Amino acid sequence: MLDQIFIGARRAARSLIYADRNALLAALQQALTQASAQILAANAADLDAARESGMSAPLLDRLALDADRLDAIIASITAIIALPDPIGVVLAQWQHPQGMQMIKRSVPFGVIGVIYESRPNVTVDAAVLCLKAGSAVLLRGSASALQTNRCLVAAMRQGLADVGADPDAINLVDSIDRASVTEMLTARGKIDLLIPRGGAALIAHVVENARVPVIETGTGVCHLYVHPSADFEQALAILMNGKTQRPGVCNALETLLVDAAIAQVFLPLCLPALQTAGVDVRGCARTQEIANALGIAINAATEQDYAAEFLDLVIAIKIVADLDAALTHIERFSTQHSEVICARDQSAIQRFCNEVDAAAVYANASSRFTDGFEFGFGAEIGISTQKMHARGPMGLREMVTYKYLIDGSGQVR
Amino acid sequence: MLDQIFIGARRAARSLIYADRNALLAALQQALTQASAQILAANAADLDAARESGMSAPLLDRLALDADRLDAIIASITAIIALPDPIGVVLAQWQHPQGMQMIKRSVPFGVIGVIYESRPNVTVDAAVLCLKAGSAVLLRGSASALQTNRCLVAAMRQGLADVGADPDAINLVDSIDRASVTEMLTARGKIDLLIPRGGAALIAHVVENARVPVIETGTGVCHLYVHPSADFEQALAILMNGKTQRPGVCNALETLLVDAAIAQVFLPLCLPALQTAGVDVRGCARTQEIANALGIAINAATEQDYAAEFLDLVIAIKIVADLDAALTHIERFSTQHSEVICARDQSAIQRFCNEVDAAAVYANASSRFTDGFEFGFGAEIGISTQKMHARGPMGLREMVTYKYLIDGSGQVR
Repeated sequence: MLDQIFIGARRAARSLIYADRNALLAALQQALTQASAQILAANAADLDAARESGMSAPLLDRLALDADRLDAIIASITAIIALPDPIGVVLAQWQHPQGMQMIKRSVPFGVIGVIYESRPNVTVDAAVLCLKAGSAVLLRGSASALQTNRCLVAAMRQGLADVGADPDAINLVDSIDRASVTEMLTARGKIDLLIPRGGAALIAHVVENARVPVIETGTGVCHLYVHPSADFEQALAILMNGKTQRPGVCNALETLLVDAAIAQVFLPLCLPALQTAGVDVRGCARTQEIANALGIAINAATEQDYAAEFLDLVIAIKIVADLDAALTHIERFSTQHSEVICARDQSAIQRFCNEVDAAAVYANASSRFTDGFEFGFGAEIGISTQKMHARGPMGLREMVTYKYLIDGSGQVR
Repeated sequence: MLDQIFIGARRAARSLIYADRNALLAALQQALTQASAQILAANAADLDAARESGMSAPLLDRLALDADRLDAIIASITAIIALPDPIGVVLAQWQHPQGMQMIKRSVPFGVIGVIYESRPNVTVDAAVLCLKAGSAVLLRGSASALQTNRCLVAAMRQGLADVGADPDAINLVDSIDRASVTEMLTARGKIDLLIPRGGAALIAHVVENARVPVIETGTGVCHLYVHPSADFEQALAILMNGKTQRPGVCNALETLLVDAAIAQVFLPLCLPALQTAGVDVRGCARTQEIANALGIAINAATEQDYAAEFLDLVIAIKIVADLDAALTHIERFSTQHSEVICARDQSAIQRFCNEVDAAAVYANASSRFTDGFEFGFGAEIGISTQKMHARGPMGLREMVTYKYLIDGSGQVR
């Protein structure tokens, strides 16, 4: 079903090797600007249909484009153009004893597939980042955004055609049945890298069923452990920032672990603050006792709560005996995304940093910083929670592979 | 079935964070030396059983250990000890605008699984490299080597115990049914990286069925393209070296592509040389014509021959119209391992290097150099033919992952 798309994408990927990729991005920008009215109209149609089907307000908001949002999406391409070219970077260079020059050089993956949910900004972001990284892209968005995505991709393909480039560098998989996903997941040799972006169910489906290389992204059950040596004001600020500044994202805090030695001091600081911020607290038995003594009623935390990525104003709290108990809890429930310790004791910080197995480990700073822009990468295609290839925020440098080039003069073994 | 092994390996992996890993390798070396007699006796028993079951001579040779081979395996650990520690390397370091120190540091994968075939040296090599890289290892060898492997692993575990280390850093999966492989392939969260080493069927089975991160290794359908501008003597030497020096390995040449412009000159040089070396040549119709004119009878090459990894003294030859035709043929049949152009024309070399999508691309040197030792890595766990994480020879630096450590003083977003 997708055969023609695969063939076109591979051909376009080959042409990208020699393309002025920044010029292509500028062409996309211009074409999207010209098509703005159509894009907004298509989005209005998607929104109407979604409203009729009873889509919830937060999901409608994710799906919605207005002139300001679309302008921001288009304007953001300028920043991507300004980033260094991730292709052709000499990663290592040396001479073989027999005289050959050996060069390890960054090269494009080739064809990158992106499977994602309703946000139409991903359609443009993913296409722009893949192109900058020298790869053709197959975009498979959600049914609810189909008219918007068709319009966005048509505009970008027109932009490529306008400057004589191969439009098949950007492809929309617009059959929105499951079969098209299955075909992408099993397209060995046709898709070189697959990046799922979306909720836990989507990620799990892709990871379980993919036969092509996948970067697992996103799920974050992030913990804050407050050590007895912590600065409690700092710990409180980091807690409130992690839980309430933007609870729906993967780098938000989901569980607070409080050292038993200071629970009687720290919880009376943070429970009222969480209550004031409207956070639904689920605590262990001792946390409930302390809350009761403060006149705050909280629910009991279950095992499911400790495993949950709430993505909402909900937090699980557990009092742990010591650092070891915190490490054991984190090892069991962490999704290896971002983990935080608040402490002044350097040996506790060192142990936490060494022993916690996660993409980002923080001492005395908010988990909310796990983000490609905050890390200074200038862009982000997602946050990897796997250990292979890329870990944590994935910028352009993580969206490429490499090859070895060996320049000889007849050498044999 | 493997639950206890998974739990032990994870615990041991944690202990390796703080271990003097070179001291552990020295302990393995000593224990293997002490157990040499038992190891050789176990290997003799495996060989007897294999002979009785009718194993072929080359496979018996792969399985066989003698005192010299075992000594060499044990001695090679010294070189691994001397290699730089791949763990704790600061890969990047910078300051966030809000003042946090950001460090990207290499860390172990955790638990690495290795599934391999009969060679018992892999049992020691893989254990040693995984330990040096800070990871616990699960070794799943073949039934034919089971007694040897049990003895090797028992000795290495004893070596760990002798210095007070956790023996579960090295584990043999000694149930040799398919179920144990399936359990390893699906051990999400228990095995952090799986490396298959062996024939194409094993690799394909692992890649098709794995739900844990896998590095695809090994299969090499490597091409030599001889451009009209080539130095024919060099091209001939590179051809003979690639095809005949060690035909059973993945970096051996399998297909020769000869530019039509020089086929009448180059083939009369190489066909007699291949014949003299006992190479079974399978040629396209024009190659057959030229061979006939030389009085050399060769078989017709089929599509299967062009797709084959012969791993033997067999070569497919095709006359191609030009560089573009060579690139098209390579794109179709390459396993993206190692590809060679012989040419003096720099623009042809540049195009070949840019457009051929392979781990190693050679200009005027033998494909046989694709090897961790030849690349100066000092070790090799395998040769990756995938684009994610590691490409080409995988040394210690490719056997680790990284984490970001963020050191703050209360920063929030």
